[in-house]
Amino acid sequence: MSAIRYELIKTCKQSGARLGRIHTPHGVIPTPIFMPVGTQATVKSMTPEELKEIDAKIILSNTYHLYMRPGHKLVEKAGGLHKFMNWDRAILTDSGGFQVFSLGPLRKITEEGVEFRSHLDGSKHFISPEKAIEIENSLGADIIMAFDECAPYPASRDYVKNSLERTTRWAKRCKDAHKYPDRQALFGIVQGGMYRDLREQSAKEIMELDFPGYAVGGLSVGEPKPLMYEVLEYTTPLLPKDKPRYLMGVGSPDALIEGVIRGIDMFDCVLPTRIARNGTAMTSHGKVVVRNAKYAEDFLPLDPECSCYTCRNYSRAYIRHLIKANEILGARLITYHNLYFLLKLMENVREAIMEDRLLDFRREFFSKYGYEL
Amino acid sequence: MSAIRYELIKTCKQSGARLGRIHTPHGVIPTPIFMPVGTQATVKSMTPEELKEIDAKIILSNTYHLYMRPGHKLVEKAGGLHKFMNWDRAILTDSGGFQVFSLGPLRKITEEGVEFRSHLDGSKHFISPEKAIEIENSLGADIIMAFDECAPYPASRDYVKNSLERTTRWAKRCKDAHKYPDRQALFGIVQGGMYRDLREQSAKEIMELDFPGYAVGGLSVGEPKPLMYEVLEYTTPLLPKDKPRYLMGVGSPDALIEGVIRGIDMFDCVLPTRIARNGTAMTSHGKVVVRNAKYAEDFLPLDPECSCYTCRNYSRAYIRHLIKANEILGARLITYHNLYFLLKLMENVREAIMEDRLLDFRREFFSKYGYEL
Repeated sequence: MSAIRYELIKTCKQSGARLGRIHTPHGVIPTPIFMPVGTQATVKSMTPEELKEIDAKIILSNTYHLYMRPGHKLVEKAGGLHKFMNWDRAILTDSGGFQVFSLGPLRKITEEGVEFRSHLDGSKHFISPEKAIEIENSLGADIIMAFDECAPYPASRDYVKNSLERTTRWAKRCKDAHKYPDRQALFGIVQGGMYRDLREQSAKEIMELDFPGYAVGGLSVGEPKPLMYEVLEYTTPLLPKDKPRYLMGVGSPDALIEGVIRGIDMFDCVLPTRIARNGTAMTSHGKVVVRNAKYAEDFLPLDPECSCYTCRNYSRAYIRHLIKANEILGARLITYHNLYFLLKLMENVREAIMEDRLLDFRREFFSKYGYEL
Repeated sequence: MSAIRYELIKTCKQSGARLGRIHTPHGVIPTPIFMPVGTQATVKSMTPEELKEIDAKIILSNTYHLYMRPGHKLVEKAGGLHKFMNWDRAILTDSGGFQVFSLGPLRKITEEGVEFRSHLDGSKHFISPEKAIEIENSLGADIIMAFDECAPYPASRDYVKNSLERTTRWAKRCKDAHKYPDRQALFGIVQGGMYRDLREQSAKEIMELDFPGYAVGGLSVGEPKPLMYEVLEYTTPLLPKDKPRYLMGVGSPDALIEGVIRGIDMFDCVLPTRIARNGTAMTSHGKVVVRNAKYAEDFLPLDPECSCYTCRNYSRAYIRHLIKANEILGARLITYHNLYFLLKLMENVREAIMEDRLLDFRREFFSKYGYEL
């Protein structure tokens, strides 16, 4: 009995994109969906109520960060991550693999797992597939990810092949270690870098383990976007139609739409929250770097076509002032807007799929946003 | 025709404290009241809606900071401070005097005004009483303060005497320069340091100018609290009964209650918002430094007796985690609680005055909070 169930509602006749629903222990998620990132058990600057106002149905939290601080045992004592952070909708946790591998010289990979030093205090740690799942079991998210290696870009064929094969062996160990498959759905991750045959090999091996959902990993790691789209084009069709498909680490408006067109159901990215804190807003007419001097006396909202709380109440001039003055409210207002913008975009994408016009929607959206098709 | 009107409702039979109301162009303010500080046109980390949730009726903003950034002309173009920051209740602006005098070696005082260098970029500026009022007129607050010199503590009798006499001359110039007395009430400020006869001289001189409200300045500048209370005891009775009295820069729970008992109606202080960002909460049982290790596994709310949003939804353990991890939500949650705590305290103080039992209230509050009477 799986913790989640994917329901395919329809396929867009124009684009092939999927409209669906994921039933989770903490509510139903319409797909395609964007998941705001709450790395340290908080979506930076936002309360859970605000996330609900903008209709977020699922958020992502980072296992590596929570393991380091405040520690998964503490979160477990608090009654799990939902209760700890006061969020009663769905949560997905990554496995920590991506963060650990990003530590570079601070880590050492063996068949058993990864030894690394904390980014906080330099203390020594070891995460194996079993340990990652133990942590994710303690955190208690609705969807948890297998401990994989996300190969860098570029990487040699040999490196990627070895790495994906180890990822398969680790996926098996994750599945065996998972204590609560009826409460937490463990997703497998397809690797294989930018090599078609390796993607095929990885998809085959991971699918043999029969997970309730699959992620495409190893993309959005620095490769050009056309290459990412090409890999998606031959990878997504390998995945089963009755399970959700998650493209990790993607959150720019163009890549979200292109990903959906290539059959993806779920996305996450720190982009909207990170650029917000820097003073950059996503708007229907492209990015607005509100920090720039040209907005000093601009009394329009961030996005005149947006009806979010920020755009209904504040001017670019005021928000620019807040950002320049390092005021918390500045980060709050832009974060709120950016997340609203992406969640609204995904709502519009779902509507376009329902009406079999996602390619038309892409053309209109891109032309307004200022993207090249 | 004055912009505001003070209405004395009653005097506490037990303590002599005043219960009243100030009618302003942006609503009625029950007194005694605490005013949250929004230095840079934002009460740090809070939205206007949140300030309304906790029943803030008036906030303070700092003229010096807004003059420096984003500039008073910009705020005027935006339609004034209320519109710029989306706050439709009352605002008080200080005169910038306190900040300018605090610049120490960066400033030079003459009869004409104060020359100083910006704390932001070192640029040279000159603020005279006329300039301060011009800025405050542009900002458009309901209550504006005269440009005074707040003498340091300790200071010699001669220094304080010269300074208060100049403050009187400047108060006259402020009054003459004020363009909108029917829309903005200009308050005079009584100085005189810790010298009784100088306080008497200053009160007499300032009252001769007939302002719609009076502040007691030059306190809470480093002197021991008993000395501040002593100065208040002989200064407040000098002020007219039919005008509001404002004690500048005071916001610790004990000093608020002691100030009210000595006849004060209005207070402001950065204390609740500043200590919040450091991880310290004010609670009915005293300060809780939630950043401390002993709260790591404490799943109680900041103040188990408090019914604010923060205390209804989050544990000390979670808030401690947020503060340790430098998460904006941590500052938000404690700021919200601390301001709620002080505004609720003042509500309780008003109720105690109404029921002629403010001294009883003080005894009970102090004993629980852990203050010595």
